[in-house]
Amino acid sequence: MPHIKLPEGLPGIVGLFAFRPETAVPLRALAEVLLRGPSTLSSGERELIATYVSHRNDCYFCQTSHGAAAAHHLSGNERLIEDVKRDFEVAPVSAKLKALLAIAGKVQQGGKNVTPADVDRARRQGATDSEIHDTVLIAAAFCMYNRYVDGLGTWAPTDINLYRQMGARMADEGYIRADASAASAGKTNP
Amino acid sequence: MPHIKLPEGLPGIVGLFAFRPETAVPLRALAEVLLRGPSTLSSGERELIATYVSHRNDCYFCQTSHGAAAAHHLSGNERLIEDVKRDFEVAPVSAKLKALLAIAGKVQQGGKNVTPADVDRARRQGATDSEIHDTVLIAAAFCMYNRYVDGLGTWAPTDINLYRQMGARMADEGYIRADASAASAGKTNP
Repeated sequence: MPHIKLPEGLPGIVGLFAFRPETAVPLRALAEVLLRGPSTLSSGERELIATYVSHRNDCYFCQTSHGAAAAHHLSGNERLIEDVKRDFEVAPVSAKLKALLAIAGKVQQGGKNVTPADVDRARRQGATDSEIHDTVLIAAAFCMYNRYVDGLGTWAPTDINLYRQMGARMADEGYIRADASAASAGKTNP
Repeated sequence: MPHIKLPEGLPGIVGLFAFRPETAVPLRALAEVLLRGPSTLSSGERELIATYVSHRNDCYFCQTSHGAAAAHHLSGNERLIEDVKRDFEVAPVSAKLKALLAIAGKVQQGGKNVTPADVDRARRQGATDSEIHDTVLIAAAFCMYNRYVDGLGTWAPTDINLYRQMGARMADEGYIRADASAASAGKTNP
């Protein structure tokens, strides 16, 4: 049961967004730019990083919804998501993405855990400064989203089909809702 | 030395904001609403929560700059900031703030660490659902900012007077820069 009174029937962070629309706007905007904004990392790769960090933080709602979004970006390959969670070093992903996932895992433990050797490894596999920056920020951001969702004891559905629908919507339509944009621009729906 | 090439002379998160303006906009907006937006918690109390979490995450730049902002809000009481970091349970702050700091400390360790007993304690001291929500999100957000700043190995000055100036500016002028707002609205300076 949630620790505070949230609107009923809205799972995970969705209920929190409805509870506090003022913080929902920047939280949604950050997810949009990090996971769907212009980048030399694909959205599938970025959702995989988000999923891996959420898995390490044991956040069921985030790892399952973002895992479904990653799978949707990656031709429905749900097996790959599980392989990355289990042991990304032997999963069928690029050497560059493995190096970035290693950095993300260090950030999940704490920022100071990232070493020059971790960064050198990523650079040797072709990672740019922007890709290293975004990997660190995605990992850091999901340490926030995961703690937000679990720290308030939000409700998480268990039906995997709900997550598949949610993931497809996140991947295709993104994180900024039309009504939230309208609200932040001071407009109301007709 | 930073792990990536950042603009020189800009400390901590300031250099990261300059490196990646697209993510700076929502990150600044989130800090603004959480720490300076309308709330029944004072900005001093909210900056104290941010400082405490940054201290527990051992982020020198964040705990010192937000500690200075907290002190600025609280009539320059730097001693109080140190007392809260050392042991908030015996620091001269309200019983409600102690209960909220206890929740923030749990969130710093991981969202699932927050228990109904932690929330009951805060509620018995008069904390509202909004205050509990904002405490959890401030703590979660600083788990992000701290990891972002340290995960990229940013530079932190050691001169306490620089932090006092920075803290006063953060407290008085806030987190959204005029040029960033103009940029996000598609305007340029004349």
